Amino acid sequence: MAIVYLTRRFHFSSSHRLHSDMLDEKTNIEIFGQCNNPYGHGHNYELEVTIKGTPDPATGMIINLYDLKKIVNEKLISSVDHKHLNEDVDFMRGIVPTAENLVVEFWQILKDALPAGELYELKLFETPNNVALYRGEWE
Amino acid sequence: MAIVYLTRRFHFSSSHRLHSDMLDEKTNIEIFGQCNNPYGHGHNYELEVTIKGTPDPATGMIINLYDLKKIVNEKLISSVDHKHLNEDVDFMRGIVPTAENLVVEFWQILKDALPAGELYELKLFETPNNVALYRGEWE
Amino acid sequence: MAIVYLTRRFHFSSSHRLHSDMLDEKTNIEIFGQCNNPYGHGHNYELEVTIKGTPDPATGMIINLYDLKKIVNEKLISSVDHKHLNEDVDFMRGIVPTAENLVVEFWQILKDALPAGELYELKLFETPNNVALYRGEWE
Amino acid sequence: MAIVYLTRRFHFSSSHRLHSDMLDEKTNIEIFGQCNNPYGHGHNYELEVTIKGTPDPATGMIINLYDLKKIVNEKLISSVDHKHLNEDVDFMRGIVPTAENLVVEFWQILKDALPAGELYELKLFETPNNVALYRGEWE
Amino acid sequence: MAIVYLTRRFHFSSSHRLHSDMLDEKTNIEIFGQCNNPYGHGHNYELEVTIKGTPDPATGMIINLYDLKKIVNEKLISSVDHKHLNEDVDFMRGIVPTAENLVVEFWQILKDALPAGELYELKLFETPNNVALYRGEWE
Amino acid sequence: MAIVYLTRRFHFSSSHRLHSDMLDEKTNIEIFGQCNNPYGHGHNYELEVTIKGTPDPATGMIINLYDLKKIVNEKLISSVDHKHLNEDVDFMRGIVPTAENLVVEFWQILKDALPAGELYELKLFETPNNVALYRGEWE
Repeated sequence: MAIVYLTRRFHFSSSHRLHSDMLDEKTNIEIFGQCNNPYGHGHNYELEVTIKGTPDPATGMIINLYDLKKIVNEKLISSVDHKHLNEDVDFMRGIVPTAENLVVEFWQILKDALPAGELYELKLFETPNNVALYRGEWE
Repeated sequence: MAIVYLTRRFHFSSSHRLHSDMLDEKTNIEIFGQCNNPYGHGHNYELEVTIKGTPDPATGMIINLYDLKKIVNEKLISSVDHKHLNEDVDFMRGIVPTAENLVVEFWQILKDALPAGELYELKLFETPNNVALYRGEWE
Repeated sequence: MAIVYLTRRFHFSSSHRLHSDMLDEKTNIEIFGQCNNPYGHGHNYELEVTIKGTPDPATGMIINLYDLKKIVNEKLISSVDHKHLNEDVDFMRGIVPTAENLVVEFWQILKDALPAGELYELKLFETPNNVALYRGEWE
Repeated sequence: MAIVYLTRRFHFSSSHRLHSDMLDEKTNIEIFGQCNNPYGHGHNYELEVTIKGTPDPATGMIINLYDLKKIVNEKLISSVDHKHLNEDVDFMRGIVPTAENLVVEFWQILKDALPAGELYELKLFETPNNVALYRGEWE
Repeated sequence: MAIVYLTRRFHFSSSHRLHSDMLDEKTNIEIFGQCNNPYGHGHNYELEVTIKGTPDPATGMIINLYDLKKIVNEKLISSVDHKHLNEDVDFMRGIVPTAENLVVEFWQILKDALPAGELYELKLFETPNNVALYRGEWE
Repeated sequence: MAIVYLTRRFHFSSSHRLHSDMLDEKTNIEIFGQCNNPYGHGHNYELEVTIKGTPDPATGMIINLYDLKKIVNEKLISSVDHKHLNEDVDFMRGIVPTAENLVVEFWQILKDALPAGELYELKLFETPNNVALYRGEWE
């Protein structure tokens, strides 16, 4: 059976502040620049969720897109959309909300949530020009 | 001489909260929904600035794009990029930062700042799907 | 008070066949070419609905986007999304579903449906390269 | 010699109906929802064809894009563009035209058709938000 | 009868150099900066051609898109696509190829070429961020 | 520690001519067609630079985007932006400037320039439809 990759794109609009509790104020400003602005700033994020699997012979689907949308919206998007990622999102407490860190935390939330197929890749666009991608790899 | 419209697109990433001091808390939530979240949320805004004028016979330009970029960045974008529109932006104090209100306030700032041509239109994308446009019209 | 134009973008996926009952079969093929294929073909349509009005001083809104989305989805999008425009859509009976004809019929449906503001413009993308626009003008 | 991946994007506009002959009517509606509409609906599909190979030292090309366009248009796009995927396309007979199934069938048609380089990946966009990708993998 | 605006988007890839024979070398560099590079540079241009007219009652078309594409490609795109706008294009001789000047010259070429409808607007994207628009207005 | 891929998109506008000194004039025209035009033509190129690495526990970053932008702009983009790739760019002397060859040469320039993380992938868009990708692979 053919192994196919199915991607669904999601959208959310959030604010965040790049600030590390492990660094002093001066270093925070040096490293994060205008992203360290105390009141934060925001983005229209786009998240591409990719599932790897074999299409069901009867339905031609790896996973029903209705189910995929429902799961990702309930488990993840509802927690971050129209929120402040530092203040409103429990799973980001104490974690600097860079695109790199966000995409790794999103993986933890979604990896066991799928009824069919297997989570293969998350691609998070902070802007059309800044993108972080995670495939569950560790070293 | 031909009358041409020249548009330059600008980008900025900001956070905001839709909340009106003229309304009580319950009404704010009813009207603005998740956009009323106290810590705010954010967007990658795109602003299209359109100048109307006649190309200079020697240069073929209505306005030099270097000048246009410098003016709009200094007078406007630097005030809103990587900022919280309710907290950090003086000209938005007491004004609900909807796309409609933002684009009218931006017009006030830019309309007299151009060395050549005439401000014709501002088009503000809050998301690719939500857009406000202003041409300086009043009633 | 400032007159502002607010645009919301909608999406729908439909099939259609370009075929005119006023023309014989040979002429239909000559004029519409591959768009005359009997089983039809389809598009991801995008519709931009633009409202003209003055922002409410208390809310900063011409119209609440929640209301605009609800109205357009109920009155129009639900009738055309995931439908065959020749077979499934009552208001298109006997009308060739070109982008030009679609956008005029959509105007009839939406023009009196808005609780605030005034319908100013409909822009229908059949593909990113083919677009029809209507502003309610007649001759 | 360097191994490079060359991608060319193609477009086609088709209609389809998601319906499985292996399932009863009620189950078809439950699974496919509005995509099961009897008259079908449609999409502007985009197909990215990626070739893997080493650039020719004389021409700097893996494959001449004129040849690649000619082959893919003749062998594939002409069969699906402005067509109903369930009714007009022989190689889709009896196969539910989900994006997953389409991309696997497209691979069978294109994999042996290239004069230079090797078919590496097909990426099919049903909409900008729904994408299936195939690399010829089996299990 | 309804007055509708139909837009078709065209693409061409050209090189140009911003340099004015009416200015000395130093002034050319001051005004045009890196765009004055002697060997030129280039762009993927996009041109939106908008026709104003009333849809034919039998066909639902203002103008047949096959005809519009044929006319614009033959009269204009073939002269500029894969060309150097200063060196290869007769109608640009002695004219600085800014977006503003290009769009006015394009208008002269297309305004009398249409068999149905009336040329309403040309919109030329030099990049996604730099756009010139012309509607045939003079002062 | 999680292995994440961070991508930053860059833009440059250049002209080029596809012409091989290893081929005679007739063969050059046969192979490269209109891309062999003596005065050249041009593109708005987009380059996606992808870094592979582990986010720093203190900053959440693989590499500071300010540093990445500075390095890629200084080492690469400044050499090709608003330039003629055959005439103005030393590292392209004698190399046909196809997208395939460009992306391999870009890799040589960037692969040792990064202070953190590791260059994983370069993706070069000549147009939105023509793309070359390189991951440092050889055979």
